[in-house]
Amino acid sequence: MTNQHSSGYDRTPVSVIGLGPMGAALAAAFLDHGHPTTVWNRSPQKADDLVAKGAHRASTVIEAVSAGPMIIVCVKDYETMHEILGAAGDTLNGRVLVNLNSGTPSQARAAVGWATERGAGYLDGAIMVPPPLVGHPGSVFLYSGSPGVFDQHRQTLASVGDPRYLGSDPSLAVLYNAALLDMMYATMNGFLHATALVGSANVSAVEFAEHALGWFMPTVVDSVLAEQAPELDKGNYPGDLGTLEMNLNALEHITQASVEQGVHSDQPRLMKEIAERAITDGYGGKNYLAVFEIFKQATREPPT
Amino acid sequence: MTNQHSSGYDRTPVSVIGLGPMGAALAAAFLDHGHPTTVWNRSPQKADDLVAKGAHRASTVIEAVSAGPMIIVCVKDYETMHEILGAAGDTLNGRVLVNLNSGTPSQARAAVGWATERGAGYLDGAIMVPPPLVGHPGSVFLYSGSPGVFDQHRQTLASVGDPRYLGSDPSLAVLYNAALLDMMYATMNGFLHATALVGSANVSAVEFAEHALGWFMPTVVDSVLAEQAPELDKGNYPGDLGTLEMNLNALEHITQASVEQGVHSDQPRLMKEIAERAITDGYGGKNYLAVFEIFKQATREPPT
Ligand SMILES: NC(=O)c1ccc[n+]([C@@H]2O[C@H](COP(=O)([O-])OP(=O)(O)OC[C@H]3O[C@@H](n4cnc5c(N)ncnc54)[C@H](OP(=O)(O)O)[C@@H]3O)[C@@H](O)[C@H]2O)c1
Ligand SMILES: NC(=O)c1ccc[n+]([C@@H]2O[C@H](COP(=O)([O-])OP(=O)(O)OC[C@H]3O[C@@H](n4cnc5c(N)ncnc54)[C@H](OP(=O)(O)O)[C@@H]3O)[C@@H](O)[C@H]2O)c1
Repeated sequence: MTNQHSSGYDRTPVSVIGLGPMGAALAAAFLDHGHPTTVWNRSPQKADDLVAKGAHRASTVIEAVSAGPMIIVCVKDYETMHEILGAAGDTLNGRVLVNLNSGTPSQARAAVGWATERGAGYLDGAIMVPPPLVGHPGSVFLYSGSPGVFDQHRQTLASVGDPRYLGSDPSLAVLYNAALLDMMYATMNGFLHATALVGSANVSAVEFAEHALGWFMPTVVDSVLAEQAPELDKGNYPGDLGTLEMNLNALEHITQASVEQGVHSDQPRLMKEIAERAITDGYGGKNYLAVFEIFKQATREPPT
Repeated sequence: MTNQHSSGYDRTPVSVIGLGPMGAALAAAFLDHGHPTTVWNRSPQKADDLVAKGAHRASTVIEAVSAGPMIIVCVKDYETMHEILGAAGDTLNGRVLVNLNSGTPSQARAAVGWATERGAGYLDGAIMVPPPLVGHPGSVFLYSGSPGVFDQHRQTLASVGDPRYLGSDPSLAVLYNAALLDMMYATMNGFLHATALVGSANVSAVEFAEHALGWFMPTVVDSVLAEQAPELDKGNYPGDLGTLEMNLNALEHITQASVEQGVHSDQPRLMKEIAERAITDGYGGKNYLAVFEIFKQATREPPT
């Protein structure tokens, strides 16, 4: 596949630092799209396959950073990035650092300051697909930080996935990433817990998925949520078609059913407690979406 | 709309007991489909609109039960049903009781015994739509219990919504209902919490929903879950594309981001704890779906 997309494209040289499963996928995609690609990894042998495909192996971090205008970092976390780039001295000056590690919003905000001090442009990014999809259709990357840097390098970034720009606040990519994964894990947990619940009566996951994912989720859940988003922005939760009091009743049945059937009950119990908290706060006659008001506030009791 | 669907259809007389928002919607749908409909409610004035549409108002429970072969009960809960039908004496004998209250599996199992003692056939059902959709396209009802009773009355039941039969275990409808709502609340909570998280950086719900519901959920989450259902039945969770250890890292970032941004953090914290429990149980090298193994077991610590 090497160089198949290279003709007529921007072929900005890129340096990829970090060759775990994700960093290696990024470097491979840049090579596939014809970018001169320099790689560095703490354990150098992870570069072997990439070198065989045409990558240049830098023997030091300084060599990697000096190789071109754009440095992509994809290591375990922000601490590791700072540790590695600490060895780059002033070679970052005048280049662009694109950080694709996962982390927290405050780490992203700190990193832009760190880069600015060293004279480097900074973009923070989040990779929304697993390594095998990088560089292929359906791959999406979220970015935030300097809009000028994004515009300048958009085409290069497009070699690894559809680049979506979220805004100049550098923490937005990490925050969106956390929020999307938060939603993903909650949804997966919802499906898995529900499957365990019917499984207690010997219903198979395949059988349940037919009803749950084949019909219920797309028809009843996802479309309703999308329709209701403007109401969330307005804080408008009319209870005329169903109230939080009624939902609490349902959540009590769900928790009780979980206990009765001998499956895990912490997750429905927490949902019940959150609904109770919303009712205590005066939203009992509103619809279920009013729990949004609880989620917008920090947890009040000390975590258990 | 009265009688618009009546010609050539089964027009079994039905009695509807309970005229809350849902019971009233059921009675209206039976009337619309041409069934002679008798109604009873503790507060009799709730029958007024239905009587104006052609329903017969029974003045006693015995009169309601005696009016036809099929008695639909839709009241607050199972206790209320038992209380009301306690007044029916032996008039239930030879008739069919269709119970559409919400409740727990053990209540459903107890109800079938209760009905059998009184010589009544029994179906337990769960209504998967809100009152305005009853009797309209997209309305789905789940049933479990005697297959003979279901087959005999399927066409009558179809007047209120698409009847789906789940099996002879009478608790299946209630269990599926609990499981589907469990999944629905978890998914809604996931979306609402995630919206609160990005909202802490002034991202609107509409903006977030575009990415979250317009792209991420359908593309990345729902389809993957549906594909993986057979693996859940096999207990097969290979970790080659990503491990629970990595997911725990992400869940830690999500919890941390929630705390940093000053939004509610109990929900991601519980997901983190469930992942930790799975790792403690030896699934650290498996993929995320291995938390299914935790959900299949009763919660171990006493609930807090
Ligand atoms: N994999 C995915 O599905 C995925 C998806 C989205 C985002 N991400 C993010 O992408 C980043 C990289 O992920 P990954 O999957 O490639 O694997 P990873 O295990 O998160 O990171 C491995 C990389 O970090 C390096 N590293 C770790 N500790 C180091 C240290 N003290 N000094 C120098 N280098 C160190 C490793 O070097 P060695 O090879 O020498 O150990 C390797 O290059 C992470 O932040 C992850 O959250 C991953
Ligand atoms: N509404 C929904 O969206 C929905 C969706 C699916 C399933 N369901 C289920 O359908 C059932 C009925 O729900 P609903 O929405 O109509 O309202 P509800 O508030 O759950 O039930 C109201 C009905 O219960 C009766 N009732 C309550 N306590 C009673 C007592 N002690 N003695 C006699 N009757 C009593 C009420 O009579 P009075 O009028 O005299 O108070 C009324 O007929 C519930 O089990 C609910 O979970 C509802």
